[in-house]
Amino acid sequence: MRILVTGGAGFLGSHMCDRLIAEEHHVIVLDNLITGSSDNLAHLRDHKNFSFIQHNISHPIYFGDKIDVVLHMASPASPNPDSPYGYPRLPIQTLKAGAFGTHNALGIARAHKARFLLTSTSEVYGDPLVHPQREDYVGNVDPIGPRSMYDEAKRFAEAMVMAYHRSHGVDTRIVRIFNTYGPRMRLDDGRVVPNFICQALSGQPLTIHGEGKQTRSFCYIDDLIEGIYRLLFSELPEIHLPVNIGNPTETNMLELASIINRLTGNTAGIERQPSGRVLTDPERRRPDITRAREWLGWEPRISLDDGLRSTIEDFKHRL
Amino acid sequence: MRILVTGGAGFLGSHMCDRLIAEEHHVIVLDNLITGSSDNLAHLRDHKNFSFIQHNISHPIYFGDKIDVVLHMASPASPNPDSPYGYPRLPIQTLKAGAFGTHNALGIARAHKARFLLTSTSEVYGDPLVHPQREDYVGNVDPIGPRSMYDEAKRFAEAMVMAYHRSHGVDTRIVRIFNTYGPRMRLDDGRVVPNFICQALSGQPLTIHGEGKQTRSFCYIDDLIEGIYRLLFSELPEIHLPVNIGNPTETNMLELASIINRLTGNTAGIERQPSGRVLTDPERRRPDITRAREWLGWEPRISLDDGLRSTIEDFKHRL
Repeated sequence: MRILVTGGAGFLGSHMCDRLIAEEHHVIVLDNLITGSSDNLAHLRDHKNFSFIQHNISHPIYFGDKIDVVLHMASPASPNPDSPYGYPRLPIQTLKAGAFGTHNALGIARAHKARFLLTSTSEVYGDPLVHPQREDYVGNVDPIGPRSMYDEAKRFAEAMVMAYHRSHGVDTRIVRIFNTYGPRMRLDDGRVVPNFICQALSGQPLTIHGEGKQTRSFCYIDDLIEGIYRLLFSELPEIHLPVNIGNPTETNMLELASIINRLTGNTAGIERQPSGRVLTDPERRRPDITRAREWLGWEPRISLDDGLRSTIEDFKHRL
Repeated sequence: MRILVTGGAGFLGSHMCDRLIAEEHHVIVLDNLITGSSDNLAHLRDHKNFSFIQHNISHPIYFGDKIDVVLHMASPASPNPDSPYGYPRLPIQTLKAGAFGTHNALGIARAHKARFLLTSTSEVYGDPLVHPQREDYVGNVDPIGPRSMYDEAKRFAEAMVMAYHRSHGVDTRIVRIFNTYGPRMRLDDGRVVPNFICQALSGQPLTIHGEGKQTRSFCYIDDLIEGIYRLLFSELPEIHLPVNIGNPTETNMLELASIINRLTGNTAGIERQPSGRVLTDPERRRPDITRAREWLGWEPRISLDDGLRSTIEDFKHRL
């Protein structure tokens, strides 16, 4: 199949491209490279089934040759306000990727009678009041809050995907992605796994904000890609409804720090800092993956130890 | 001042135009007339301070002469799935008015260094779990629900307005409008006040769904316009935050029916029907107007009796 991947130069997007190429699909990546990197695709550049177009999907683009599948993955995705790649620094680009980008990508799918998949996010649940989060939980998101440029853009994108499905009969899929980590994350991404690994590989103590008891659910990239791939090619009648893909196993920051220090042989330990940043992640977010299990036969397979080991190897080469 | 009003041919928009013209402003209306009507502006057509452009604000438009204020009021707004003017029948247009329309209108405000006001909605609170709703309540909205084309479009619009305010320094205002009624509502709008008045004026019994104990808070159009006008010209430093404008007095459907039957002299009474429609309004929604009281010195002044009397007069002329 000929598959268009918007945001294909990003962390998730580039791994998706690897999988699609491995399955012998033809892949066309659209990416404006404001948060993605062409380094992530360097190994695919000369592949006969791969092509790259530097373009912002928030602006229209048209394809003459048939497209069979559109994966709309383009968006800034790091919540880090200190990173130039974080969505707090790119508010209007982020809103546009969610609204205009989704509209343009849906337009391509409609014109080509192609299947469409949106990568949405656990951020649609905001700072959740119920745990774990099922897909029918409507979330706790402040429309004018400091993360609203991302959360509301993704919620809007979901609403528009459903409108195209219901009104125009486009064959759509929505995946809500929880915390994911792995090779090719930006070294300066700002989220905890890259931060810890960079500190550990430099022999520094790992910075823990607050008590260190706050938990995250970390999904290794290969598990995530497997889930999205199954969702994309599932033919269940209800498959246009959102599906959570993430790891339901919770790990707190102290445990994570201890594993990373052990795997890297870092002896500098940890350093505590006060919590209380404006844009701090919610204290807790954990997927209910019943739907993914039942509909896709999917669940995460890769242990945190194994996933972190591969990620650390990749970071070593890039540091 | 030269004031651009998107959606100025709508129910709320046309009353806003009347007020602005009365205050000796120059008014330019943009409206694509898919849910608005040029009849609402017929009396202004030849006024020296008034002009009309038939245009869909979801597509870009540029102004050479200085614009001082942009009021972005354009959107389908009736939840009625049976009306051709209801947003359930116009899902993609509604999403675009919220996202593309707001973006284009903000672009005009930014280019002209104009003040900007978004008419948002109590629908951002969805089916609220707390009563009454204060502006800091984040709501209970299903991003893929049957009303999401409107609710998520308005939530997105608010997020984009805040992004333009915070990133580009645009001088913005957001009003969250609760149930409003008055002259010029579409006869076939589908909401309860026009439905009841049309039935009463035809001598039919008024249709009550379910028990008739569900309440609404009805604000008369003149009260609403006064609130928006004060918000627009307030200079408080915190005025860019959303402000609820609505009537906190709750009225149940039986009471409303009884007032309308009395004022119209309709002796046909009421007719009960089962409730349970998919798109039924939430059981209850009521504004906390503390912010409007404290910041704007505003509260509703017009009684339901007086407001309904004027509305009935207007409906009589049009039926």
